[in-house]
Amino acid sequence: MHFDYYIPTKIIFGRGRLKELASQELPGDKALIVITNGNSMKRLGYLNQVIGYLQEQRVESVVFDKVLPNPTEEHVMEAAELAKKENCDFVIGLGGGSAIDSAKSIALMMTNGGRYWEYVKGRGQEMPAAPIVAIPTTAGTGTESDPWTVITNTETNEKIGFGIPDLFPFLSIVDPELMVSVPANLTAYQGMDAFFHSVEGYLAKVAQPVSDLYALDSISRITKFLPEAVKDGNNLQAREQMAWASTQAGMVESTSCCISEHSMEHALSAYYPKLPHGAGLVALSVPYFTYMLKKDEKKVAVRYMDMARAMGETDVNSPLAFIQALKKLIKNVGLENLKLSDWGLQKEDAEKLAVNSFEAMGGLYELDPVVLTQEDARAIICDAIQ
Amino acid sequence: MHFDYYIPTKIIFGRGRLKELASQELPGDKALIVITNGNSMKRLGYLNQVIGYLQEQRVESVVFDKVLPNPTEEHVMEAAELAKKENCDFVIGLGGGSAIDSAKSIALMMTNGGRYWEYVKGRGQEMPAAPIVAIPTTAGTGTESDPWTVITNTETNEKIGFGIPDLFPFLSIVDPELMVSVPANLTAYQGMDAFFHSVEGYLAKVAQPVSDLYALDSISRITKFLPEAVKDGNNLQAREQMAWASTQAGMVESTSCCISEHSMEHALSAYYPKLPHGAGLVALSVPYFTYMLKKDEKKVAVRYMDMARAMGETDVNSPLAFIQALKKLIKNVGLENLKLSDWGLQKEDAEKLAVNSFEAMGGLYELDPVVLTQEDARAIICDAIQ
Repeated sequence: MHFDYYIPTKIIFGRGRLKELASQELPGDKALIVITNGNSMKRLGYLNQVIGYLQEQRVESVVFDKVLPNPTEEHVMEAAELAKKENCDFVIGLGGGSAIDSAKSIALMMTNGGRYWEYVKGRGQEMPAAPIVAIPTTAGTGTESDPWTVITNTETNEKIGFGIPDLFPFLSIVDPELMVSVPANLTAYQGMDAFFHSVEGYLAKVAQPVSDLYALDSISRITKFLPEAVKDGNNLQAREQMAWASTQAGMVESTSCCISEHSMEHALSAYYPKLPHGAGLVALSVPYFTYMLKKDEKKVAVRYMDMARAMGETDVNSPLAFIQALKKLIKNVGLENLKLSDWGLQKEDAEKLAVNSFEAMGGLYELDPVVLTQEDARAIICDAIQ
Repeated sequence: MHFDYYIPTKIIFGRGRLKELASQELPGDKALIVITNGNSMKRLGYLNQVIGYLQEQRVESVVFDKVLPNPTEEHVMEAAELAKKENCDFVIGLGGGSAIDSAKSIALMMTNGGRYWEYVKGRGQEMPAAPIVAIPTTAGTGTESDPWTVITNTETNEKIGFGIPDLFPFLSIVDPELMVSVPANLTAYQGMDAFFHSVEGYLAKVAQPVSDLYALDSISRITKFLPEAVKDGNNLQAREQMAWASTQAGMVESTSCCISEHSMEHALSAYYPKLPHGAGLVALSVPYFTYMLKKDEKKVAVRYMDMARAMGETDVNSPLAFIQALKKLIKNVGLENLKLSDWGLQKEDAEKLAVNSFEAMGGLYELDPVVLTQEDARAIICDAIQ
């Protein structure tokens, strides 16, 4: 029992709580609001609501609306310049992981010199990042309760998760009502991303007592409620449960860590940016967890069985029960026919992707409960590409 | 599902980690170190270790060593004056709840004018409190992971728990090795205090999903390991489990809240300052939880049974299983013969104590799952006084 606990974010959770943006203490008088280049935040009225609530407490705002679904370093730099020019004090990420992760990286570059990628590659920050407010409109990334941000360097095909304590949001408002408009397939992809945050964090060598609690509870909620949220996006109870499961899975990422499944997926979606992160994870998952089990059953058997029980399986007496439950969940959220070849991936890519997964995010392999080599990664990715 | 989550404290947990005080980022160059008037922190060498680790990073310190087991407002004011005179930047509480709670209240008075009791009674703070570092040497209060501080006003016989977000420690170092010297009876009292933080937080109307996780996990660890820590104080595994259970019970107090059992106990130990808080809680507990069950079984039955299961009871099919498990735990930690009359309490006190519990800490009654009146409180306290 040797671990640190640090989640300084204030999390406001509940239906209809977006309006509390008008009364919560905010870290400045002018915000940069970051949204993606799609039209949804405007069309759904969320952007105007946010601007209006800020005005109620006399906080000005400027909007940066160019973020891509896989956000890029160029946009981080461009938005940070805008924020500096406009004298913004803090950044609000409104949307899914792309918007909020961009807000985090922008916050770092508002106060520090050079290029963003230098910090990803190890340059020490000189100044505290600007404060961040996260308003998620999807249930998946957990970025509202963790210090991580995932940005792609399009020049080098590197999609890297980067985290420092400064990138915990100052405030996160998690309002499940903002999530009802997410279409079924994205609901499934995003929800499965949260599921794997918890599964990987439960298996990581750095798991600690409290990350275990968060992980098993999230796994249980997702298994039960993600199929319902996919079936009926207006089911607010299911949205609410998924919102909390996802935020709690972010807390797993803050107290434990993802493992190499995430390294592999980042390689896939770095090369194939249209592949949704959650879809990549689902495709990798059964080959990945099966491979791990075959390679060293002793190292994972107990925890696989714990997770199978959390997923509602009864009479669990083999670690294979987890693989079975995982397949059942994938089917229940309508993703049993998902094929990576639909996004253009080919088996010949496996070698390149395995190499990239080690080069860009090799650190997570060191947290795996079972040692996986580059050859293992190639075999898993090859198996996943159908 | 409508709740806030906010625990900004950085918690460093593990055996031998006190030495990291020499390398952790600290909130200033000069500390006021607060300890109780007993000799233990000096005799055990902890005070010198703390001073030495601070010196390693060139942080100066001044010691305030007058805190009483039930800390008083006078000492809070006196220590805050000393800290101001000595230009201290932050406060370190080293010891049990008395030292750390005093450190918190002193931190508030280092930066705010007037008397401490005015703030307890509702005066708004003008300035942020000075930062607080908590180094617990007992497992019980959970003050290292919550915003609460309990101080007694000896003029008015009020012992009140007061909490504001500023009073979360900046840093808490929880090192189970510092706890091995606590004698068996205090280990039992303190551990039972942590137990009731979790039990009450699990029953409170403001319980939320994550406080439920913390509570049941702590209840389970305490039931298993407190008897071992009482039996053999040098059992480091038991100390470690109790240290985490107590810190996690503090997280219950941060995300849910104690209920009226704590109001009643504060009345008892306000009038009888030699009565250890944990001893008062143990004495109240069986009458209190039995009374609540009899008054409105429907409101508590499910949660009593959850707790009985967390305590290792099998075939739980009645809420009485919790009362039975509680009695068993009290016996297993050697407190089955505890009598409030040993500290001078008499049945005739019950009325006065019930009144005081409402006057000083009536707010917690509003969080009870079953409505308890002043007459109910009198009956419970009367029953508890043997």
